[in-house]
Amino acid sequence: MIQLADARRIIAAAEKKAAEIGQPMNIAVADAGGNLVAHVRMDNAWIGSIDISIKKAWTSRAFDITTKDLAANSQSGDQFFGIHASNDGKVMIFAGGIPLKKDGKVVGGIGVSGGSGEQDHAVAEAGTAAF
Amino acid sequence: MIQLADARRIIAAAEKKAAEIGQPMNIAVADAGGNLVAHVRMDNAWIGSIDISIKKAWTSRAFDITTKDLAANSQSGDQFFGIHASNDGKVMIFAGGIPLKKDGKVVGGIGVSGGSGEQDHAVAEAGTAAF
Amino acid sequence: MIQLADARRIIAAAEKKAAEIGQPMNIAVADAGGNLVAHVRMDNAWIGSIDISIKKAWTSRAFDITTKDLAANSQSGDQFFGIHASNDGKVMIFAGGIPLKKDGKVVGGIGVSGGSGEQDHAVAEAGTAAF
Amino acid sequence: MIQLADARRIIAAAEKKAAEIGQPMNIAVADAGGNLVAHVRMDNAWIGSIDISIKKAWTSRAFDITTKDLAANSQSGDQFFGIHASNDGKVMIFAGGIPLKKDGKVVGGIGVSGGSGEQDHAVAEAGTAAF
Repeated sequence: MIQLADARRIIAAAEKKAAEIGQPMNIAVADAGGNLVAHVRMDNAWIGSIDISIKKAWTSRAFDITTKDLAANSQSGDQFFGIHASNDGKVMIFAGGIPLKKDGKVVGGIGVSGGSGEQDHAVAEAGTAAF
Repeated sequence: MIQLADARRIIAAAEKKAAEIGQPMNIAVADAGGNLVAHVRMDNAWIGSIDISIKKAWTSRAFDITTKDLAANSQSGDQFFGIHASNDGKVMIFAGGIPLKKDGKVVGGIGVSGGSGEQDHAVAEAGTAAF
Repeated sequence: MIQLADARRIIAAAEKKAAEIGQPMNIAVADAGGNLVAHVRMDNAWIGSIDISIKKAWTSRAFDITTKDLAANSQSGDQFFGIHASNDGKVMIFAGGIPLKKDGKVVGGIGVSGGSGEQDHAVAEAGTAAF
Repeated sequence: MIQLADARRIIAAAEKKAAEIGQPMNIAVADAGGNLVAHVRMDNAWIGSIDISIKKAWTSRAFDITTKDLAANSQSGDQFFGIHASNDGKVMIFAGGIPLKKDGKVVGGIGVSGGSGEQDHAVAEAGTAAF
C-alpha cells in the first residue's frame, strides 16, 4: 500500500530529475486502486498537463504497464487502438506513466507530464527508482 | 432474451478458458438492449479492463459485429474511422467483443478484456460457445 | 482484499433476500479501491439501476458510509448538500449502498438498486452479512 | 501568483490541523487560474474526497468566495440554487473551500475534504493562515 510519505519521496526524486533536465513537470502518484495520493505542479509547468499526469498515473496502474509500452500497442492498426476512448477518457497512451512495484507486484503508478515523451518517461523513472 | 442464468453460464465458460490460458480477465454480458446483465473481474485482472469489457459487450450488440471485425473497419483511413468517438465513448474497436445469437438473431453480446487482443477474443469465443 | 469468490458469496446472499421480498435487483460489489469486482442484474430488474447499483457500491467505499446515512447529510440545507454533483456524478445519496468491513476496516462496498430505498438497503444488508 | 512552495506551506499547515483534530483529509491548492498546484491525500482519508478537495479549491477561486458562504446561497429556494450543475459539475457548494488572498486580492483557493463540513472548513482556515 502506498502511503503519502512514499508518494512524497517518489515525487521529490522526480522533481530533482526534472530540475536537472530543466523542464518543469506535473507529477502524480496513484495507489493500488488507481486513486490519486498526491500531485504537484512545478512552477511554470503546463496547466494542460495536470490532468494528463494524474491520468498517466492511473493508466499505468490500471493496466500494469508503462504508458510508453501501451502507446506501442495503441496506434492505428495495433491491437489496442481505440483504448484511449475507454474509461471515460482516462487512458493516456503516450510516455510518462510507470507502474510502481513492491515485491514484483504492481501497487500503484506514477504519472509525469510537462515535456517531451522522452523527458516525461525519464522523470517518471527517477521517481520510480525512489520507491 | 438473455436471462441471468444464461449470462452466468457464458461467464463460467469464459472464465474456464481464461484460467486455461493463465490470463485473468474481466468478462461482461449484455442483453438485446445492450444493457449489462452481469460482470466479473477475475482476481488480479486489470482494473482498467472493467469498463472495457462492459463496453465491448455493448459494442458487439450495438452493431451486431465482433469488435475484432469492427476494428478492421475503424483504423485511420478506414470507412468507420472515428466511430470510437461516438456514443459517449462506449464503442470499443479492438478484439474481445462478440455478439450472442439465438436462431441466427443477435440477442446480446459478450465482452472480454484483460490480455492481448487475441486472448480476449479467444476467451469471448469460449463464452459464446456456452450460449 | 475482496476476491471474486467473496463478491459471489455476497451477491448470492443479496439475491436470496431479493427473491424473498419478491423484488428483482441489480447488485454490485466494489473493492478497496472502489473498483467493480462483480455485478448481476436479476431477471426483470430495472435497467436504470445497473449504473446506480455500481455507483452505490463505489460511494459506500469512497466515503466509508452507507448511502442511507450519506443521504441524511446531503439534502438541501444539510452539510453535504451538493456532494451528488462531485466525482463526475458517481456519488449516490439514497439508500442501498453499504461499506464492506474486515476487522473493522472498510475494504469495499456493496450497492443494490431495484426497489424502494428500504428494500435496497435490506438486500444490501443481507449481502453484507455474508462477507 | 501561487508557487509550489506556497502550496506546500499551505498544505503542511492544513495537515497539521487535520492531525490535531484526528481526521485525515484530502487537501488541494489552486492558483489564480483555478488550476491545481498541489494535492495530498493523507493516509486513510476518503477516496471520494480527492475530487471534492480539488473542486472546492477551484470553486473558491472561481467565485472568490468560501464554499461555506456559497452553500448559504445555493440551497433549494436560494438565489444560486442549481449552480452545482454548472461548469461540468466542478462547483462544490459545501464547506471546505476558501479563497487565498494576497493584498486583498484573490489569487487562488484551498479545498479540503474528509470530515464534517465544520472540520473541513477549520482545516482549510489553518491552511489559509499559512499563506
